[in-house]
Amino acid sequence: MTLPATPRTPFGGDYNPEQWPEQVWKDDHRLFDAARIDTLTVGVFTWALTQPAEDTYDFGILDRIVTEAEAHGRRIVLATGTGAHPAWLARAHPEVTRTDFEGRKHRYGQRHNSCPNSPVFRRLSAALAGRVAERYAHRPAVIAWHIGNEYGGACYCDLCAAGFRTWLREKYGTLAALNSAWYTTFWSHTFHDWDEIEPPSALTEHWRGPDHTAFQGITLDYLRFMSDAMLRNFRDEKAAIRRHSPDTPVTTNFMGMYRPIDYHRWAPHLDFASWDAYPPEDAHPSWAALSHDLMRGLKAGRPFWLMEQAPTTTACRDVNPVKRPGVMRLHSWQAVAHGADAVLYFQMRASRGASEKLFGAVINHAGRDDTRVFREVAALGAELERFGPVALGARTPARVALLFDWDSWWALEISDGPSRLVRYQHVVLGYYRALWEAGVDIDVVPVTADLTGYDVVVAPALHMVKGDLAQRLEAVARRGGSVLATYLSARVDEDDNAFLADVPGPLGRLMGIRIDEWDAREADFGNPVHLAGGQLETAARLVFEIITPQGADVLGTYQADFYAGTPAVTRNAFGAGHGWYVGTDLDQDGIDWTVRQVLDTHGLAGRHRDQPLLESAARVAPDGTRLLFLLNHAADPLTVPATTGGTDLLTGETFTTGEPITLDGRGVRVLREN
Amino acid sequence: MTLPATPRTPFGGDYNPEQWPEQVWKDDHRLFDAARIDTLTVGVFTWALTQPAEDTYDFGILDRIVTEAEAHGRRIVLATGTGAHPAWLARAHPEVTRTDFEGRKHRYGQRHNSCPNSPVFRRLSAALAGRVAERYAHRPAVIAWHIGNEYGGACYCDLCAAGFRTWLREKYGTLAALNSAWYTTFWSHTFHDWDEIEPPSALTEHWRGPDHTAFQGITLDYLRFMSDAMLRNFRDEKAAIRRHSPDTPVTTNFMGMYRPIDYHRWAPHLDFASWDAYPPEDAHPSWAALSHDLMRGLKAGRPFWLMEQAPTTTACRDVNPVKRPGVMRLHSWQAVAHGADAVLYFQMRASRGASEKLFGAVINHAGRDDTRVFREVAALGAELERFGPVALGARTPARVALLFDWDSWWALEISDGPSRLVRYQHVVLGYYRALWEAGVDIDVVPVTADLTGYDVVVAPALHMVKGDLAQRLEAVARRGGSVLATYLSARVDEDDNAFLADVPGPLGRLMGIRIDEWDAREADFGNPVHLAGGQLETAARLVFEIITPQGADVLGTYQADFYAGTPAVTRNAFGAGHGWYVGTDLDQDGIDWTVRQVLDTHGLAGRHRDQPLLESAARVAPDGTRLLFLLNHAADPLTVPATTGGTDLLTGETFTTGEPITLDGRGVRVLREN
Amino acid sequence: MTLPATPRTPFGGDYNPEQWPEQVWKDDHRLFDAARIDTLTVGVFTWALTQPAEDTYDFGILDRIVTEAEAHGRRIVLATGTGAHPAWLARAHPEVTRTDFEGRKHRYGQRHNSCPNSPVFRRLSAALAGRVAERYAHRPAVIAWHIGNEYGGACYCDLCAAGFRTWLREKYGTLAALNSAWYTTFWSHTFHDWDEIEPPSALTEHWRGPDHTAFQGITLDYLRFMSDAMLRNFRDEKAAIRRHSPDTPVTTNFMGMYRPIDYHRWAPHLDFASWDAYPPEDAHPSWAALSHDLMRGLKAGRPFWLMEQAPTTTACRDVNPVKRPGVMRLHSWQAVAHGADAVLYFQMRASRGASEKLFGAVINHAGRDDTRVFREVAALGAELERFGPVALGARTPARVALLFDWDSWWALEISDGPSRLVRYQHVVLGYYRALWEAGVDIDVVPVTADLTGYDVVVAPALHMVKGDLAQRLEAVARRGGSVLATYLSARVDEDDNAFLADVPGPLGRLMGIRIDEWDAREADFGNPVHLAGGQLETAARLVFEIITPQGADVLGTYQADFYAGTPAVTRNAFGAGHGWYVGTDLDQDGIDWTVRQVLDTHGLAGRHRDQPLLESAARVAPDGTRLLFLLNHAADPLTVPATTGGTDLLTGETFTTGEPITLDGRGVRVLREN
Repeated sequence: MTLPATPRTPFGGDYNPEQWPEQVWKDDHRLFDAARIDTLTVGVFTWALTQPAEDTYDFGILDRIVTEAEAHGRRIVLATGTGAHPAWLARAHPEVTRTDFEGRKHRYGQRHNSCPNSPVFRRLSAALAGRVAERYAHRPAVIAWHIGNEYGGACYCDLCAAGFRTWLREKYGTLAALNSAWYTTFWSHTFHDWDEIEPPSALTEHWRGPDHTAFQGITLDYLRFMSDAMLRNFRDEKAAIRRHSPDTPVTTNFMGMYRPIDYHRWAPHLDFASWDAYPPEDAHPSWAALSHDLMRGLKAGRPFWLMEQAPTTTACRDVNPVKRPGVMRLHSWQAVAHGADAVLYFQMRASRGASEKLFGAVINHAGRDDTRVFREVAALGAELERFGPVALGARTPARVALLFDWDSWWALEISDGPSRLVRYQHVVLGYYRALWEAGVDIDVVPVTADLTGYDVVVAPALHMVKGDLAQRLEAVARRGGSVLATYLSARVDEDDNAFLADVPGPLGRLMGIRIDEWDAREADFGNPVHLAGGQLETAARLVFEIITPQGADVLGTYQADFYAGTPAVTRNAFGAGHGWYVGTDLDQDGIDWTVRQVLDTHGLAGRHRDQPLLESAARVAPDGTRLLFLLNHAADPLTVPATTGGTDLLTGETFTTGEPITLDGRGVRVLREN
Repeated sequence: MTLPATPRTPFGGDYNPEQWPEQVWKDDHRLFDAARIDTLTVGVFTWALTQPAEDTYDFGILDRIVTEAEAHGRRIVLATGTGAHPAWLARAHPEVTRTDFEGRKHRYGQRHNSCPNSPVFRRLSAALAGRVAERYAHRPAVIAWHIGNEYGGACYCDLCAAGFRTWLREKYGTLAALNSAWYTTFWSHTFHDWDEIEPPSALTEHWRGPDHTAFQGITLDYLRFMSDAMLRNFRDEKAAIRRHSPDTPVTTNFMGMYRPIDYHRWAPHLDFASWDAYPPEDAHPSWAALSHDLMRGLKAGRPFWLMEQAPTTTACRDVNPVKRPGVMRLHSWQAVAHGADAVLYFQMRASRGASEKLFGAVINHAGRDDTRVFREVAALGAELERFGPVALGARTPARVALLFDWDSWWALEISDGPSRLVRYQHVVLGYYRALWEAGVDIDVVPVTADLTGYDVVVAPALHMVKGDLAQRLEAVARRGGSVLATYLSARVDEDDNAFLADVPGPLGRLMGIRIDEWDAREADFGNPVHLAGGQLETAARLVFEIITPQGADVLGTYQADFYAGTPAVTRNAFGAGHGWYVGTDLDQDGIDWTVRQVLDTHGLAGRHRDQPLLESAARVAPDGTRLLFLLNHAADPLTVPATTGGTDLLTGETFTTGEPITLDGRGVRVLREN
Repeated sequence: MTLPATPRTPFGGDYNPEQWPEQVWKDDHRLFDAARIDTLTVGVFTWALTQPAEDTYDFGILDRIVTEAEAHGRRIVLATGTGAHPAWLARAHPEVTRTDFEGRKHRYGQRHNSCPNSPVFRRLSAALAGRVAERYAHRPAVIAWHIGNEYGGACYCDLCAAGFRTWLREKYGTLAALNSAWYTTFWSHTFHDWDEIEPPSALTEHWRGPDHTAFQGITLDYLRFMSDAMLRNFRDEKAAIRRHSPDTPVTTNFMGMYRPIDYHRWAPHLDFASWDAYPPEDAHPSWAALSHDLMRGLKAGRPFWLMEQAPTTTACRDVNPVKRPGVMRLHSWQAVAHGADAVLYFQMRASRGASEKLFGAVINHAGRDDTRVFREVAALGAELERFGPVALGARTPARVALLFDWDSWWALEISDGPSRLVRYQHVVLGYYRALWEAGVDIDVVPVTADLTGYDVVVAPALHMVKGDLAQRLEAVARRGGSVLATYLSARVDEDDNAFLADVPGPLGRLMGIRIDEWDAREADFGNPVHLAGGQLETAARLVFEIITPQGADVLGTYQADFYAGTPAVTRNAFGAGHGWYVGTDLDQDGIDWTVRQVLDTHGLAGRHRDQPLLESAARVAPDGTRLLFLLNHAADPLTVPATTGGTDLLTGETFTTGEPITLDGRGVRVLREN
C-alpha cells in the first residue's frame, strides 16, 4: 500500500471545528472554497470528545464534521485522536501518565502525555482507533488514516522499566551478552539479575541531563527501546484500523530531524510518510531541503506528504517572526520539489484559547478573507489547482547519497569525549549544504540502504558503523565511486564499544589513514587549514584528529599547534574509486571545497552551482516527464541561463537551453523539460 | 478605618530584640533616642517564640519587648508572627509545608513556608493572631497590627488542588462554563468531572517553568486562586484580631510590583497599605516612584506606609552595593513625596547569624553610633522631626492615570507568542518613566478605577480587557481626554480567549486601527521608526504590529522590512478627544516623544521637564496646604527656576516664582507653596 | 605508619584487566616492561566481581590479576573495590542508594552512589574490605591498601537525617546550644525537639542550589557532618583491613582542592596522602603547585603519592584537549618537585565502553606501543628509573605558609552578602600564584598548623576565625613575622555568627584597622587602586571594604567613588613584625606587588622571580641532599643563571653558581645541589 490516490496535490490541513460553534463551520467551508482547499485533517485531538468516559463513545460531533466536509467535497485525513489522552483516563488509570527523566510522575496535562508501555493506554488507544475506523472506513471522503500525533518524548516509569527488561531479554538472550555489550565490568556494574536493570535517567546513570550518562550502552538501548515502544503504539492502532479498513493508507506525522524517534525503524510500518515542517527561525534553506530528503528516504524515494506547515507565524518559540511575503509559497514549492505530494497547513482556523491561540492560521479570529495570509494561501491554492497532478508519484533522480543514522546521532551526542560541542545535525547540515549549493540532487538514506546506484556516498559523523556497512562502502569505492567520511566516524560498534583497532576502525582501510590522537578546543578557536595547495585557507574547529596517512594523499593540512603540517583532509585511492576523509570541523568554505572535489571527480556538475541561494531540484514522473524546480531563496530577483529547455508550468512561459530565465525574489519556476 | 493616627511621620522599623540578650535592649533604646526613632515593628518572626508547642503560648519575651518599648515612648506596629511557621508545627502537621511547582513536598525550612490552604495552618495562625490581639490590644503603644509578612509564593499540594476545585466551582458553577472558559476542546482537555482538574505545574500543564503552560486559562485561574487563598489567610487573622481589637488599623507589608499577588484584590481588606521598597540595583528612579504610586493607588489615593527599606546594603542579591551617601535620605523623601506617611527600615540592629547577618542595619554588630549609616539615619530622624505632621494625609493631585493590571501582567507573560521577550514591567516602566520625566503627577490605578477625573489615561500592555473597561476608556476620549494604548493590548478577554474581532478587539473603535499581523525579532534588532515627520528617528523592537488605519492618523512609521512605511504610532480622533496607539516596543526616546504629544494636547506641561533626573511631586494636605517635593537624583547639584513661590520646610528658605532654586547632588527640597 | 617502602619512585597506575579477556593481560605486561611500569593500582571497581551476591565472594579473577602482576615483578596498590556498589546491593537493600539535594531518591547507577549513613553499606563495605585484606595481606606485591575511590558527593536521605541529629547531639549536647549556634530566633526557627531538624536541602532551607541557604549554620554543620560520615566509611574499612594487615599502609585517593570533603579532618586517619591531579584545562601552573602543596600539608609535609593523572586527554569535560608534547612529563616532575613520591596514571589500558572509553590511556584500544602517548610514558619511565630513590622522603624547606581552611571555604561561599561572585579558590589562587611567581617554597597548611617556624603567613579569604588562631597569628607578627590577610577575612566565628566587634573581628588588633562598610560591584567593574605611592595602578574588584586605619599605614588607596582616597591596602606594625591587609579583590599585579613587599621585608627573595613561567621548588632528602627542581612551563626555551651549583640528575650535566642554565620548552632540570 502506498500514498492516497488524489486527483492533484492535496491542499488544506488541520481542521478542528469542534472548537467552534457549528454556525462557524459554514463560514469555514465558504473560505475553503475560496482558497481551493480540498483536504482536511480532522480529529487529531478528539479523544475527550469521542470517548467522554471509559465505556462511552460519542461520535455525534465528529459525524457532523465529516458530513459537512463531505457535503462540500473535501477529502479527509481522519485521525484516531490519540495524540493526547483525556483527563478522565488519567484519573481512572494513573498508569497512563508519564514519569519524566527526573523521575517525576506526571499528572494530567499537556499532550504527548501517555506512557507508551501502559497496558491501559495500549488497550484503550487501540480500541478507539478501531472504533473510529469501524465508523468511518466506508466514508468515501476518508482517504487516509492519521494515527496519534507527532510521536515523541519518553517515559521512565516502572511499566517502562519492566518493558525495557523484556525488550533487553529479547535482544540479548543472556545477561552475559548484555554485560558484555554494556561493558559492565566498568564501575562494578555487572548485572546478575534482569530485575536489577533500571531505565537510565537522572535517578540512575545520568547527570547534567539526558546526554550525560555513565553507560552509553544502557542509554543507547533505552533510546532504541523507547522508539520501539512508541512504534508498537502506532502498530497497535494500525492493526485495529486494519480490521475495519483494509485498503485506506495509514500514516502518522513525523517531524523531520527529530532525535528521539528512529524513523528508519518506523518507516516499514507506515503506508506512506508524512511530516510537519517548522524550520528554525534562522535556518538556511538547506535545512528544510535536507529534512524533506530525509523523509523521502524513509520509503525508498517514494513521495511523502507535507502534513503540516505554518501559514505564517508560529507561537511556540520565544520569538515568533512573521513569514515574509512569498516565503510560505516558496517553502510549499520547495516541499513539492523534494517529493511532497501534498501541501497542508496547521491550521485552518485559529484557536481562540490556550497555547496555540496566537499560532498563525489560514483564517484568523476575525474570520477574514482579506488578510495577507489568506490571500497568499488562496493564491497558492489556485496555483496548485493549475499545476494539477503532473508531479504525483514523481521520483528524484539522485546520484549522491548522504547517510543519516539515528544510532550515530545518539551515540555521538551521548559520548563522553572528545567534545560535547560537536552536534550531529551540525555536521550533517554542513555536508548537505555543500551538496545543495552545488546544485545536485541528493538522497538521504539509512545506513541499510542499497548503495549500489550511487556515484557518491557522504557519511558525516557516522559515529557508529554496524553490520556490513564498511564492506558496502568499500564496494562503492571499489567500483569507482567516492565515499566521504568525517571526523568522529567509525568510532564505535553497534553496542557503542570502541573498535579494537586504529581509528577509524572498519573504515581505516578504505580511508587509508590511522588516527592515534585527537585534540579538542572551544568553539571560538580555529586552527587554519590549507586546502588546494594553500590556495584556500579555511579553519578547523572543535575536534582536530591527528592523521597518519597509511597510503592516503594529503589534500589539506593544519597550520598551527604541534600538529601543524599534518593532514586535515585526505583522499585514498581504493579500487577504481576513492575514500575521502575530513578529520576536523571545517568551516563551510572548506567543506564546500572538499565536496566540490568529490563531485568533480564524477562530473556531477550540478545546476547553477555559483548561485548559492538558487535551489534546483528534479523530479521524474511515472510517465517519464521530467520536472525541474528552480527556487530563489533570495529576496532579490536573479537571472540565470536555462540548463534545459522546457515550459514553466506556473506561467506557461517556455525556455530554450541557455536562454536567460529570471526568477523574482523568493520566486519559483517549475519547468517541464522538453 | 484608615491609617494609624500619629503626631508626625513615624520613623523606625523592624526590631527583633528577641535575637539578642536583654542587656543589649538598653543600648538599642539609647541609640533610638539619638536617631529620633519613635516607631518599631515588633514580632514579625516570633511564632516559635510565642507558641513553643501546639498547646503552649509564652508571651514572656514579647511582653518585655513591648514594655521596654513603651517605657521609652515608642509606638509599636505589632506583628502576629505568622510569616514563618515553627519547626514543631511542620513536624506535628506535615500538611502545613508547601509542595512546590516541581511537585516536591517540602519539609521544614525557610520562611513563606505555609500552605495557604492547610486547615491546620489556617486554624493555628488565626488562633495565634487572636491571642496576640487579645493580649496587646489595649496597650496604648500598639498603633497598628501587622499580619504575616510579605505574602507570596505558591503551593501545589493536594489541599491546594482541592481548594482550587472549590474555588472553580464557585466561579464557574458548571463544568460546561469552565470548559468553555479554558477552551478545553483544544488538545482533548474537556473535563467531565471536577476532580479531574489538577493545579497547573511542572507535573501537569507546564514545561520550562511557570510561564510556559499548555492552557493559559488554567494557569491564570490558579494565579488568581493562589492570590485569593493567601488573602483568605490574611482575612482569617484579621477576623481573629477584630474580635479583640475593633479599632486599631490592620495592614500587611506588600512588595510593590510583585507579580504573584494581585494587590488590587487585596486592597479592600487592608485598613491601610504598606510596602517594602528594595529597588533593584540598576533601577531608574522612576522604578520606585511607580511602585509608590501603585501602592498609593491601592486605597484610592490615600497615603501608605513605607514599611521597610534598607538603611544601606542588602545581602540577598548576588552583588550587594552599598548605598551612596545621601541616597537613603533621597529615597526616604521620595517615598514621602509619593504618599508615604511613614519611613521605616529593615532593620534596627543587624542579626548575628543566618542569611541576613550581612544585611545593612541601623545599628551594626559592633553596636556603634559613629558609622556613616547611623549618622545618616539620625540626621534623617532629626529632619523628619522638624518636618512634623504637615504631610500626613496629603493627597496627590494627578490629572494622569496609568492603568496597572495583574491579570494583564499574568496573561501577557504566560502567553505563547508572539514574543517571550516582552515583559509587562518593561512596558509599564517605559511609559511611566516618560510621564515621570515630563514632571507630571501620576495616579497608578486598577482597571476598575473611576477614570472620570483624568485628562489622560495610559494603558501600557493592557493585554486583557475586562468588563466595561473599553466603554469607560471610550468615555474618557469622548469627553476630550486622551487614551494611550500599546502593542499587545486588548488581545484577550477575562478568560484569556482571543476576541473574535480584529485586533485590538474592544479598543479597535477607539484607536481607529486594525491589526492582522505582527512580526517579532530578537532583542538586539531594531527597526527604525520615524516620528514627528521624520525629525526624530528612534527604533522599534521585539514586536512589530502591522497596523491598517481605520480612520486613525499616522504619527510614526516603520522604516525597514516589508512593512516599511506602515504605521507604528497612530492617533485617532474620537469624540472630543483621542485614542493613541503605539504598535511596537519603542526605544525610550520614542516613548518620550509620544507621551509629550499626549500631554501637550492637554497642556499638562509638568514641572522641570527638561531635567531628566529632577523629580517633582505634589501633595495637598487635608487643610489645603500644597507641598512641592523636588528631588535631585543626580550626583551633581543643579539649579532651576522655582515654578511656585514657597518655603523649603527642610531649611526654612523661601523662594518666589522664577527665582533660582539650587539642589545639592541627591538633594531634596520640600516647598510649602505660598 | 607512613608511606610504602619502595626502591624508587613508583611508576604505573590504575589497571583494570577484569575488563579484558585474559589473553590481553600478557600484552599488557609486555608493554609495562617496555615502559618501566612497576606499580599497579588494582581492583578499584571490583565489588560486583568479587561479591556477585550478598553471601557469595569470588576472588578468582582478582587472584589471577594479582598473580600475573606478581609474576612480572609489579608492586600492587590493592583497592577494596567499594568506590561503587553493585546492582544487586541496590536491589536487595534500597537504603544504600543516595537521596540527592533535590530530595530525589536515586536508584542504581553511576559510582559514588552509596549513602554513607546506610548501616547496610557500612556493614557490607567493611566486610568486603576485610575479606580482601584477609586474602591478600600476605602477598608480597601488595605494598598499600586503597580504600574506596575519590570520596565525595552527599546524601540527604532519612538515614542521613537521623545520623545528622546524632552528630548534632554529640556536638552541641543541648538544643539550647544548637539554637544559639544556629541563631534560630531568626525566622522563627527555634527547635524544640531534635527530631524537628532536617538536612538542609532544596526541600528545606535552600533555594537556587547548595550555596543559597536560609541558615548558614545548619548548612555548615551538614557539610561537616557529611565529610565526617564519609570519613567514618573510610575508617570502617580501615579497621577491617587492620584486623588482617597490621603493617601495610592505607590510603584513599583525594582530589586536591575538592570542596565537599575537609581533607584536614581526614588526614590523621590516612597512613599517607595520595591524590588525583586533573588540572582544569585553562589552569595556570600554580593551580597544580598549590594542590600538591595542599596535599603535602595534610601530613605535616611528608611526601604524598600522585595516585592518578591523565597520560593525555581526559573525556569527562565538555571539551577535552590533548596534552601537548612534553606536558605530561612536565606535570609529572612538577608533582615530584612538590613532594610526590609516586607518579601514577589513570589508566593503563583504555576501556572499550562506557563513559571513559575515550579517556586517554597509556595503551590505546589498538594496543599500540608506537603512539606518542606510549612513547612519552616509556621515556618518563626510563627517566624515573635513572633518577632512582634520591627524592624519596624528601621535605620542602618552606619559610612561607598559606592557610587553607575548608570551613572558611564553605562559610564564604554560602554567605548571603556581600557578593556571590567571590569564590574562595579564586582568592587563594591569586595569593598562591604571587608567591609561586616569586619563586619561594610554600607550605599550604590548615589553620591548626604550628606556625612558629614561618616568616610569613598568608591568610586569603580566611572568612572564619576559630579557636586561638588570632592569638597565634599575632604571635607570628610579634616575633617579627608577617601576617597577610584579605577582604572578607575574620567575619564569622566557628558557628558562622558575626563577631560582636568591628570588622575584621579578632584580626582587628593585628591589622590595625576598622571596617564599617563594604561596597560590591559586578565583575566587570574596576575601581583603580594606587600602590607604591601611585607608581603602580591596578584595579580593585568585586568587594570594596572601606577601611578606617586604627594605627595601620596606608599602602594603597581607591581612586574612585565616594571612598576615593581611602585605604585599599594597609600594613600595621605589630610587635617586631606586621599585619598586612588587602581590603578588596586586587588584580593579579596588585597582589604581586603586595606579596613582594611582604617577602622583601623578610629577604625572601625567591629564585628566578623575574621568570613568571619558570617554576622552582626545593626538596631536602632525609640524608640532607638538596634537590632543586626547575620547570619551564613555557613552550619556548629559556636560559637563567644557576642560583646554586649542582648536577642535573636527568642529564648528568653540572653547573656552577651563576653559570647559564638552559631549559627546553616545557623542560625540566633536577639539580642535586653541591
